[in-house]
Amino acid sequence: MPEPAQSEVSCSEFSKDEQRGVYRAIHERRDVRSHFLPRPIPDAVLARVLNAAHHAPSVGFMQPWDFIVIRDESVRRAVQSNFERANAQAAAGYSDDRRALYDSLKLAAIVEAPVNLCITCDQQRQRGAGLGRQSIPATAVYSTVCAVQNLWLAARAEGLGAGWVSILDLEQLRSTLGIPEHVIPVAYLCLGYVSEFGERPELEERGWETRERIENLIHFDRWGVRDRQRAAALGL
Amino acid sequence: MPEPAQSEVSCSEFSKDEQRGVYRAIHERRDVRSHFLPRPIPDAVLARVLNAAHHAPSVGFMQPWDFIVIRDESVRRAVQSNFERANAQAAAGYSDDRRALYDSLKLAAIVEAPVNLCITCDQQRQRGAGLGRQSIPATAVYSTVCAVQNLWLAARAEGLGAGWVSILDLEQLRSTLGIPEHVIPVAYLCLGYVSEFGERPELEERGWETRERIENLIHFDRWGVRDRQRAAALGL
Repeated sequence: MPEPAQSEVSCSEFSKDEQRGVYRAIHERRDVRSHFLPRPIPDAVLARVLNAAHHAPSVGFMQPWDFIVIRDESVRRAVQSNFERANAQAAAGYSDDRRALYDSLKLAAIVEAPVNLCITCDQQRQRGAGLGRQSIPATAVYSTVCAVQNLWLAARAEGLGAGWVSILDLEQLRSTLGIPEHVIPVAYLCLGYVSEFGERPELEERGWETRERIENLIHFDRWGVRDRQRAAALGL
Repeated sequence: MPEPAQSEVSCSEFSKDEQRGVYRAIHERRDVRSHFLPRPIPDAVLARVLNAAHHAPSVGFMQPWDFIVIRDESVRRAVQSNFERANAQAAAGYSDDRRALYDSLKLAAIVEAPVNLCITCDQQRQRGAGLGRQSIPATAVYSTVCAVQNLWLAARAEGLGAGWVSILDLEQLRSTLGIPEHVIPVAYLCLGYVSEFGERPELEERGWETRERIENLIHFDRWGVRDRQRAAALGL
């Protein structure tokens, strides 16, 4: 039997302040690449955000994730070189104004951020006994991404910025970190206290892309069925 | 220039109550398949959780997601049949006690939950101009999963349960919902108010699987490097 006090907590509604916390984390979370401070992350805070990740949903309760906590400078320099090569390749795909804007963006903070984190997915993990992933094997990776997002939101609540570095050669990253062949490095994150959280996403601020209007993304009952009246009722 | 009031909100720290809200949502979120109430979801609440999803991080600010809001009974019955067929196939993979336990689990609430949501990923979406996803194209799908997790946590803060149905034939689902070939149905969710949120994940309560100890999932600097001292310092 669960103890009553705990059970009460679990079933109770969220207070207005608690609700506001959830929505603030969601709306004020940023993909941070600048403004990292050298201030170390206390172990207790790092433990809370890792634990938040570990409490993500997972298909069949598989918990397919692992967390590599990286502080070692030589490892981070190797990842930084990986990023620089991949970024040079990516940059070559743009020209003119797009290229100039691309080159002006800061897309990683591997060395400046006090902690890097690699969150991986072991698709062969036996936990969960395969429940829920026979039709859609990708759900193991999806579970891992849910862990990343949990960590990202918890980090925001702690005043920590996180930046997801996706411009990396995965095979090189696997080799640098010694990750086995069957394990997928899903996310490489830079984590640390920041001097500020931007008002809006940096790519929006800098004019790279605009936010889509949500009403353009809502369909009713079937793909392509737009319904202005129902969308208006939603207040979108 | 952002207006000062807004900017203050954005940069300010979270109050203790707001932090607690974030951690409560993370730790008290459940994958709900039972206990749905018929009580309708007010449009304003549905709009808030959809908007939370739309404010997920996305690679290059691509925003590759769409949301199909499903209330139509005939659509839900077709999805239910899809689930039943896929679930019968999945069940056939278990035997003896595992099979009996599997058969006793409720793994979907497609018809009972007042709203179903299909969240999709359009990998061809041009927004973001490809930034950040040349090295790892899967980041488009990852972005969509972040949207799912945002919605799930916002739902918990609103007192709404959500259940991710992953036992579905995707091609049949695509056909039922009219989803184009190049768009991936990432998540199919059942959403509604619930009579309770379980103390622990249902698969843990029911003895299907146990929670892994987080210290077994933490590596330091490189895969496989365990460090009891550093793990202990983290308080894990």
